[in-house]
Amino acid sequence: MRPGDDLAALLAAAAPEDLCDGDVLCVAHKVVSKAEGSVRRLDDIEAGERALRLAAEQGKEPRLVQAVLDETAILLRADRGVLICETRHGYVCANAGVDASNAGAPGELVLLPADPDRSARELRGGIAAALGVRPGVLITDSFGRAWRLGQTDVALGAAGLVGIDDRRGQADARGRKLRATMVAVADAVAGAADLARSKDSDEPAVLVRGLERFVTAEDGPGAGAMRRPPADDLFRAPEGSGPP
Amino acid sequence: MRPGDDLAALLAAAAPEDLCDGDVLCVAHKVVSKAEGSVRRLDDIEAGERALRLAAEQGKEPRLVQAVLDETAILLRADRGVLICETRHGYVCANAGVDASNAGAPGELVLLPADPDRSARELRGGIAAALGVRPGVLITDSFGRAWRLGQTDVALGAAGLVGIDDRRGQADARGRKLRATMVAVADAVAGAADLARSKDSDEPAVLVRGLERFVTAEDGPGAGAMRRPPADDLFRAPEGSGPP
Repeated sequence: MRPGDDLAALLAAAAPEDLCDGDVLCVAHKVVSKAEGSVRRLDDIEAGERALRLAAEQGKEPRLVQAVLDETAILLRADRGVLICETRHGYVCANAGVDASNAGAPGELVLLPADPDRSARELRGGIAAALGVRPGVLITDSFGRAWRLGQTDVALGAAGLVGIDDRRGQADARGRKLRATMVAVADAVAGAADLARSKDSDEPAVLVRGLERFVTAEDGPGAGAMRRPPADDLFRAPEGSGPP
Repeated sequence: MRPGDDLAALLAAAAPEDLCDGDVLCVAHKVVSKAEGSVRRLDDIEAGERALRLAAEQGKEPRLVQAVLDETAILLRADRGVLICETRHGYVCANAGVDASNAGAPGELVLLPADPDRSARELRGGIAAALGVRPGVLITDSFGRAWRLGQTDVALGAAGLVGIDDRRGQADARGRKLRATMVAVADAVAGAADLARSKDSDEPAVLVRGLERFVTAEDGPGAGAMRRPPADDLFRAPEGSGPP
């Protein structure tokens, strides 16, 4: 995958003949970023003062740290070699999503797509143009979690799939009103899709079927709407900034 | 479901005839807690001083808050009507997992199982005794996440399913060594299973197939091993306790 490659056309060509509107195509962000040119080379990066200092403190490559800072709006934690960042999109993840694994060549870094929801809409539109069907499209990445070990895939971008199934105010099986239930459907789908491949299997897209009830004709608000607003987030504050 | 009911026998009776060792049975913790008697009635609870104060501050029912505190090792946040707790098992979640939705009767609260990994092992053993096959078993609950809206189901207990697929030190598709990759398999499976039902569908168990490569003969370390150790957790500290 190279910048400018037509990912939608490649996905359409690889899709099964019976691809349909109720399907969901989960696409790893890495292949999207490569096609969109959201990649950098370590050799092209000069580490500034803050990157040099952080790299020394955390035992990391200074130019990688500079690339991370360039994608970061707020650095939430820098500890034990880990940088937890709020990206310029508002996602909270390690290294602001900057990653060398499964990159194209040694020294290449893959960034998050500039606007993952736009990427999802464009892929959906491109597939519809090629095949005449409009499956839901997710752009996914593997995110770590506070409190639990390991990563699960989440939806960075979405078009045509319900992100959150908001059941607040609806009834449970006993008729009792649900007060907090908001099912993060798109994240569960992203996580399920990742079970169908391996980190070394070079499979950038997974087709998920049977979720017609969550697929919408409209592209919808996207996965950006799944970000918890910072003002409502009890764990967003940079270290040491909480009330005494 | 009543305390003392034989959940393993009920699951075995409901299982398809071709249930096999490579299958994974995902069981909602709520039905496990009911069978094990991990339930309380609001009427049996007297709110103490701390519960009364917290309830007043957060606009909550004092006896519910007392039940939450009784399950809590460390209260991490109390803000905007939300209590984020580290449970006595070490799980971090809202209300220490104490929940009135889909409970048996008005005024009944369902707690987390006392030892979800033990519950998973017992169910697996009971199903094996009844049917002669040993599918993997997960005990699941819906947990909110820092930074992202909505809940996804995670594994509270596990027997016979790999919790974390630790790929650190292994190669990506380009032969480059993976440095941080630990796939939270059991959580992805739990999330996937929840997509197959609805919050009002009264379906306590979901069968997941096709994951034979993660199912093990041994029960294994369980989902307790998926808890991030507090010492390695950058977001565990109670509010205001971080370094200045």
